[in-house]
Amino acid sequence: MGTDNHTPLRLGMVGGGKDAFIGAVHRLACRLDDSFILTAGALSSTPEKSVASARELGLAPERSYGTWQQMLDGELKRPRVERIDAVTIVTPNHTHAAIARAFAEAGIPVACDKPLTSTLADAQTLAAAVEKSKTPFCVSYNYTGYPMVRHAAHLVRTGAIGAVRKCFVEYHQGWLATKLEDAGQKQAAWRNDPAQAGGGGAIGDIGSHAENLLSTVTGLEIEQVAADLTSFVPGRKLDDDAAVFIRMSGTAKATLTVCQVAIGEENNLTLRIHGDKGSLWWRQEEPNHLTVATLDGMTKVLARGSGFQSPADSASRLPPGHPEGFIEAFANIYKGFAQTVRGFNAGKPTPGEHPGIHDGLRGVRFVDAVVRSGKNNSVWTSLDGR
Amino acid sequence: MGTDNHTPLRLGMVGGGKDAFIGAVHRLACRLDDSFILTAGALSSTPEKSVASARELGLAPERSYGTWQQMLDGELKRPRVERIDAVTIVTPNHTHAAIARAFAEAGIPVACDKPLTSTLADAQTLAAAVEKSKTPFCVSYNYTGYPMVRHAAHLVRTGAIGAVRKCFVEYHQGWLATKLEDAGQKQAAWRNDPAQAGGGGAIGDIGSHAENLLSTVTGLEIEQVAADLTSFVPGRKLDDDAAVFIRMSGTAKATLTVCQVAIGEENNLTLRIHGDKGSLWWRQEEPNHLTVATLDGMTKVLARGSGFQSPADSASRLPPGHPEGFIEAFANIYKGFAQTVRGFNAGKPTPGEHPGIHDGLRGVRFVDAVVRSGKNNSVWTSLDGR
Amino acid sequence: MGTDNHTPLRLGMVGGGKDAFIGAVHRLACRLDDSFILTAGALSSTPEKSVASARELGLAPERSYGTWQQMLDGELKRPRVERIDAVTIVTPNHTHAAIARAFAEAGIPVACDKPLTSTLADAQTLAAAVEKSKTPFCVSYNYTGYPMVRHAAHLVRTGAIGAVRKCFVEYHQGWLATKLEDAGQKQAAWRNDPAQAGGGGAIGDIGSHAENLLSTVTGLEIEQVAADLTSFVPGRKLDDDAAVFIRMSGTAKATLTVCQVAIGEENNLTLRIHGDKGSLWWRQEEPNHLTVATLDGMTKVLARGSGFQSPADSASRLPPGHPEGFIEAFANIYKGFAQTVRGFNAGKPTPGEHPGIHDGLRGVRFVDAVVRSGKNNSVWTSLDGR
Amino acid sequence: MGTDNHTPLRLGMVGGGKDAFIGAVHRLACRLDDSFILTAGALSSTPEKSVASARELGLAPERSYGTWQQMLDGELKRPRVERIDAVTIVTPNHTHAAIARAFAEAGIPVACDKPLTSTLADAQTLAAAVEKSKTPFCVSYNYTGYPMVRHAAHLVRTGAIGAVRKCFVEYHQGWLATKLEDAGQKQAAWRNDPAQAGGGGAIGDIGSHAENLLSTVTGLEIEQVAADLTSFVPGRKLDDDAAVFIRMSGTAKATLTVCQVAIGEENNLTLRIHGDKGSLWWRQEEPNHLTVATLDGMTKVLARGSGFQSPADSASRLPPGHPEGFIEAFANIYKGFAQTVRGFNAGKPTPGEHPGIHDGLRGVRFVDAVVRSGKNNSVWTSLDGR
Repeated sequence: MGTDNHTPLRLGMVGGGKDAFIGAVHRLACRLDDSFILTAGALSSTPEKSVASARELGLAPERSYGTWQQMLDGELKRPRVERIDAVTIVTPNHTHAAIARAFAEAGIPVACDKPLTSTLADAQTLAAAVEKSKTPFCVSYNYTGYPMVRHAAHLVRTGAIGAVRKCFVEYHQGWLATKLEDAGQKQAAWRNDPAQAGGGGAIGDIGSHAENLLSTVTGLEIEQVAADLTSFVPGRKLDDDAAVFIRMSGTAKATLTVCQVAIGEENNLTLRIHGDKGSLWWRQEEPNHLTVATLDGMTKVLARGSGFQSPADSASRLPPGHPEGFIEAFANIYKGFAQTVRGFNAGKPTPGEHPGIHDGLRGVRFVDAVVRSGKNNSVWTSLDGR
Repeated sequence: MGTDNHTPLRLGMVGGGKDAFIGAVHRLACRLDDSFILTAGALSSTPEKSVASARELGLAPERSYGTWQQMLDGELKRPRVERIDAVTIVTPNHTHAAIARAFAEAGIPVACDKPLTSTLADAQTLAAAVEKSKTPFCVSYNYTGYPMVRHAAHLVRTGAIGAVRKCFVEYHQGWLATKLEDAGQKQAAWRNDPAQAGGGGAIGDIGSHAENLLSTVTGLEIEQVAADLTSFVPGRKLDDDAAVFIRMSGTAKATLTVCQVAIGEENNLTLRIHGDKGSLWWRQEEPNHLTVATLDGMTKVLARGSGFQSPADSASRLPPGHPEGFIEAFANIYKGFAQTVRGFNAGKPTPGEHPGIHDGLRGVRFVDAVVRSGKNNSVWTSLDGR
Repeated sequence: MGTDNHTPLRLGMVGGGKDAFIGAVHRLACRLDDSFILTAGALSSTPEKSVASARELGLAPERSYGTWQQMLDGELKRPRVERIDAVTIVTPNHTHAAIARAFAEAGIPVACDKPLTSTLADAQTLAAAVEKSKTPFCVSYNYTGYPMVRHAAHLVRTGAIGAVRKCFVEYHQGWLATKLEDAGQKQAAWRNDPAQAGGGGAIGDIGSHAENLLSTVTGLEIEQVAADLTSFVPGRKLDDDAAVFIRMSGTAKATLTVCQVAIGEENNLTLRIHGDKGSLWWRQEEPNHLTVATLDGMTKVLARGSGFQSPADSASRLPPGHPEGFIEAFANIYKGFAQTVRGFNAGKPTPGEHPGIHDGLRGVRFVDAVVRSGKNNSVWTSLDGR
Repeated sequence: MGTDNHTPLRLGMVGGGKDAFIGAVHRLACRLDDSFILTAGALSSTPEKSVASARELGLAPERSYGTWQQMLDGELKRPRVERIDAVTIVTPNHTHAAIARAFAEAGIPVACDKPLTSTLADAQTLAAAVEKSKTPFCVSYNYTGYPMVRHAAHLVRTGAIGAVRKCFVEYHQGWLATKLEDAGQKQAAWRNDPAQAGGGGAIGDIGSHAENLLSTVTGLEIEQVAADLTSFVPGRKLDDDAAVFIRMSGTAKATLTVCQVAIGEENNLTLRIHGDKGSLWWRQEEPNHLTVATLDGMTKVLARGSGFQSPADSASRLPPGHPEGFIEAFANIYKGFAQTVRGFNAGKPTPGEHPGIHDGLRGVRFVDAVVRSGKNNSVWTSLDGR
């Protein structure tokens, strides 16, 4: 089992076979820094496809499993020094809960794609089980892996912009402007099927990223939401657009909008935080800079890699002007999780920087409250448990 | 009286004396194209200051009036060939109604700053009086004077982006991030005094511009709003931040946000319109370009001055790359109003392109509904009269 | 004759009739701030057109002259209190010298379009005559009227970026990518006719602007040039592209490029100045901001209208975020020239901020040296007189 | 030995130990797509450091070599199925020739950092030896690995912008604005030592990248150059700024500028190509988009990942809006080289897309001619061999 820093940890993957977008990204990300090496897989819900996909990726035959249950059993039978150090779950949302719980209860650290689960009940049950198990858990809210996002959080914590007043977070895409789910596009199909995705469409898929970015950078809790959800594409079952008013702890507020029918938008996740002494802007599509404005009229553009004496530094690999992107940010999540796993393996907890089970639960609570408000004529709705 | 196109029309001004920001802008704008020449003025509510300001601007002593009533009387006594062709009102909101009504009923065309009035009752009374008088009326929603805004409206009308689905309009500034109204800043003081500004702070001041831009470009009617209003600066009497969900005619929706405590934001009025065939983006701070994206994956950047066979052409003075700005856009409003006034003078109505009394009334209805929703826990609220 | 600050000065115009681009711009610019009012004109080289154009612009019949000589004679016969206060010359380059000299020697202040003349001999003769006459003289290098250009010059003078090392100035356009001069396009025709334009094509037309911007902001003298000139469009008589190495006073250098066949470029005049303590960037197409970078790693974006205690302040009319553009910058040149003229009229020299006869002569010297180097296989060539 | 596509090839590395910037980048890049796995190393010119660095990276003790000669001998003694499949050379320029030649002549494929060598004589000798050996050779001009650079080359080849007229390529940085080489900065020290770097400073270091980008995208040959080289930092031995006029095959020209004292510039490599039918713009710091302008006035922004049916597609891993950066582009070079090596191993040449020995030689020829012109008062100078 991996405890040193040189050898990659062994990773099992559930889901992510052929045609799966996010599984391939996870594989690139976990490998970039030698954090993990893919060692075992149950890559499809169809056993034959599962095995075939694993072989295509070069996995050993005996670790190319037909189902995640077989992988769990098979790995547990191996001696600890050979067993996978962690599992990563990249299946449709509704299956996360059962898989994640089984591995966590077996003591195998879990990285789970977002949103944590498709229902709040599932999320609460899973969170309780994970806490009880004390097994490391990571939720892959990858956008918080960007160095300048980490520096933004650092600036907020250290008072650079004063008390947070009003935030604007938006996540706009255009790829669902037509009814792709009827055109055999797999990504679109499960995302717009309530049975697989849960009650939220765009709000669950990309809204949960926006929520996590907002919560992570501000460090504030979302207390109440009022939401307007729309399915603009005729016949679509889940929302493809959502606008949300947010009341956060203290007197801070936010406006959050997500839209997946915004033709021409690629993957526009943007965060603006306005405090009483200054402001921050960050845009995922140009992630290597962070703009900071202050009351004295100064607007500064900070470049990744400049040396900030903040968590941005260790999350950065290259000097300014050498763009780092999506995969690098994702890899930072895996690097943080690898640190957590090594500490767990060594029996000395040394938690790395990555979103955990609480981020996952909070995200599902947020989506749940937004969907309830949306169904209830945009009435102000408290997050469950608050 | 002016009817030809060569001689500037004679303009009287109410308000806009020393220290007034917008009065000076109106003077630059009306002069740029020789649309109007400032001929008479009642520039302050203090008669002595009024006369002194007029003299400083080089107005004739006999047309440097102490009050607007004196100006109205004085001008009406002049023969029609000498009399002012129009009056422009740039006083605080709460005084618009009485002044505008008096001039309109006297048959003197009126250009009135936005918002039309400080209360809905005033707006309705004024609108009725103006309609009855048949006197030309202009409301200076200056942002619709930008050539690329006019081209955007043309593109929507001619189907370039299909049916409008979701719009995002935002108007963010930072200049009220501190309590300037307590620091003797005149612009801040009246804008945050409910007696002068009306029930809306930021929503009345800049939100009404955002509403007009949205309505003008889409050509759709706003039917219902749900709003969250906030005064972030402690002790401030009116909102300095507002977020609004909007239901428009048909199935279109919009999210509108205004904020005047967004440190670092200069005058960020941005409009994004997403239809079922394409999208438009326009940003006031870089007004010479319009981005158009379509379902086929093309994103084009259109430059003012390129020749579009649309109203953008006549609103443009210079070739691409020679930036036109705020004053030029404002001048286009005056140019359109001058055309209306010349037609009125000639007895042959030839309405120019400029916002009118209906735009003004609709704007006040919008602000009124937003303020009512805000006071009523963000409940969905119909615009009065709908 | 105008000496106070309230009444516009009276301006005569030579050239600038129907179809002339730059004449109309001059009229907008001189009027914006009430600096000048167009009072007399000899607007075309064809007397009938000249008179007709003047009448279309609303000039009095008796001041709608057929030729510039008639205008000079006619105005000199008027009493000084009615006579034009200045003349502005917006004819093709080769005619500037004779017209400008005649008015200057008659004691009528001259604003002359750039480049000053089409030959160096003409420029030298004219400069000598102007100096002898002591008549105010302005050359309309309009780009130096931008507030942020003036602030850039201020920052260089006050040491903000240390000693200047290397500058990059480029002026790229695309409108001459095809042989427009054969297609009856008047602007293209005279610019590519050596008899009218002089020895330089792009280098004379836009290169002289680039030179003036560089010289004005750095305050350094250009001593030597090495140039490569090209006519990319087959059959074109003058250069449509030029690249120039520049040695300036001290150890500073610059690379200057102009191109008029750069399809897609609108009017891209960009200046970057690198000193030993910091750098400045400015781009004409987004003229309201200036970027300043310093050795400590800070990159700041300065917004026009922010209050700099520099010449940028008085050249600015509106707050940040309210874009000012080409006409406003041009108007600043006329405002400066008006101040000079008022001082001249009052017998108390109070020179305003505008380029003068020395800028004009230096510009022609630059173009002459560049053309000589270009014809001599890019050999390093000293500017005449250095 | 690796021939299939699943197993990473075995890579040896020369240079790139502790404190070396580019070595770490090569390791990230070769690993990203499982193209190569680092298996052996001679990471420093000091044998003790070399071994220690290798151990830190987790290399096996028996493949942690003290010198590159030991690595070459040691690996040749291993059976072919264990031996490294390729070597990558990331040492200072002056050592490339001997190392690369030894490995190539031993039949071990070579990836060599740019510039190929520090002298033209070395480059010519090496190129002859490599050609004779028929061993695969890659020069890591990494910027040509960007998908949108490959698409730009595709657009030029397929006539999208017509015949190339004028190109502008610039590569500006600020990190050498002070005399870092005297401050113990290792990267600065060898780059400014003629014995290690060769005759070119900035022109060799980053100018060779600019040349390769220009040549690769246009597909044209550089025939003559005229150059002005400067060392702005007092006491610096090599140029830190260079401006070059370029005559290319046919009638195309280019202006190329490099500068390493441009404070505030991060890693600004920009290419603009103007043809007689259209233009292309690409900027390394925002590498995911390519702007294309055409004669009809259209300016389009193309996004990586959109599907172009060009080499951009296979070089792209993620959808639009998910930024890919420097490492991903670099990894594309290694992916291409891996394909070449697998073909070589299998005895069936299947050359991948990567710069080769001819690119390397051409780059040195370019730097040599530029340096000669610079020393000879900027006289036009033919590239050796043309």
